[in-house]
Amino acid sequence: MTYCLAVQVEAGIAFAADTRSNAGVDYVTSYSKLHCFRTKEGTVVALLSAGSLATTQEVVSWMQRDLDQDNSENLNHFSRMFEAAAYVGRVSQAVQESHRAALAATGVSAQATFILGGQIRGEPPSIYLIYPEGNFIRASADTPYLQVGETKYGKPILDRLVDAKLSLPQATRLAVLSLNATIKSNLSVGPPLDLGIYRTDSFHPLVTSRLDEEDPYYAEVNDGWNNALKDVFFRLPDYPWDKPGGR
Amino acid sequence: MTYCLAVQVEAGIAFAADTRSNAGVDYVTSYSKLHCFRTKEGTVVALLSAGSLATTQEVVSWMQRDLDQDNSENLNHFSRMFEAAAYVGRVSQAVQESHRAALAATGVSAQATFILGGQIRGEPPSIYLIYPEGNFIRASADTPYLQVGETKYGKPILDRLVDAKLSLPQATRLAVLSLNATIKSNLSVGPPLDLGIYRTDSFHPLVTSRLDEEDPYYAEVNDGWNNALKDVFFRLPDYPWDKPGGR
Repeated sequence: MTYCLAVQVEAGIAFAADTRSNAGVDYVTSYSKLHCFRTKEGTVVALLSAGSLATTQEVVSWMQRDLDQDNSENLNHFSRMFEAAAYVGRVSQAVQESHRAALAATGVSAQATFILGGQIRGEPPSIYLIYPEGNFIRASADTPYLQVGETKYGKPILDRLVDAKLSLPQATRLAVLSLNATIKSNLSVGPPLDLGIYRTDSFHPLVTSRLDEEDPYYAEVNDGWNNALKDVFFRLPDYPWDKPGGR
Repeated sequence: MTYCLAVQVEAGIAFAADTRSNAGVDYVTSYSKLHCFRTKEGTVVALLSAGSLATTQEVVSWMQRDLDQDNSENLNHFSRMFEAAAYVGRVSQAVQESHRAALAATGVSAQATFILGGQIRGEPPSIYLIYPEGNFIRASADTPYLQVGETKYGKPILDRLVDAKLSLPQATRLAVLSLNATIKSNLSVGPPLDLGIYRTDSFHPLVTSRLDEEDPYYAEVNDGWNNALKDVFFRLPDYPWDKPGGR
């Protein structure tokens, strides 16, 4: 499995992804699921991917080729982010379609889900989730995050803490904690983590970083969080089983 | 959906369940999913259920009838808890089988999953998860909890905090927080909550309680947890994006 998320705050976008890829529990490898494209000035686009590794790699390869060859459809040709999202959906559909018959025969799924995020000059930054069917949704100010892959374990912490007013480092921290919750509860999601940030209106490429388990920041945040949670838990009140009306 | 869990600590067992039942989002009702049986002295048994409401209600009804009529198989006749778990599995299979043909025609699932917990004199307390297929597993000291239904959102907090050395009120508190995390992230799981505790070697029936959203304890624990989490989160360090080696 995989877990990737993007948190969009007013200050920008924090991207985060685990790097574990597996075909069964005995073939576990590490692949980056955060893809940054070298686009023209005024267009910053990054892609997070979950699902069939074959599909996601091929989608990224076609997108890169379209860009390198300046094909009629490529990331540099869009003036709105939703057009880029629709393009990712079309490439994804085409890749899945090209393998569908062969895969159907063996019952393997070629489905993939993507998060596209960034900014095109003239628009505010935005993040889109592109479904395996090629259609897509955009995150809103009310729910300023998107997730793909093994999303459930990391959702409660987002639902408690996410806020479009968070700073970009805080959004990064929240993404790391959401990933860590998933890693603790699901063996198939694992470190190292890929992180990326995009600062609103900077039009600089993403600043990226890889955190492994020994990284002092990863340890500091996760141990700090874990220990603080335990402290808080033990300070909460007991259920009044013995009080009148308490049973 | 449903979310039920049992946390087994040395001091006893805490049972917790939401009460929401739904057939689509426009037919949402409230049903208890914590069933306590009136058994003979020396046998204490409670059942948590998830899945088809028709199946779970019918299973409980048959189990109660077996008990009332002192049938050859009933909860009073077992000297080990695993025998009771196997019996629940057989009843569940029989109920599902009786409706399978009709349901297959409409594509509706009659599957149900159960947690059986309690104590039979001569054994320590135990909790069992009974799969829709009728087979079952027991919780261990390493993983002293079992969940059924919408289990993922409430698992991270358990994985961080569960410990067989928790007191029974602490185990109850943990179950409430795990339920609350699920309620926040999934509309189909909702209050009020049913709680039950069994104290090791007491052989008293479960002490049960129902918590609605207005219950002061529910509010105190959840608000306390939520606010403390926010405090902790904002005190954690920022990722050192600008330091050497930080990118």
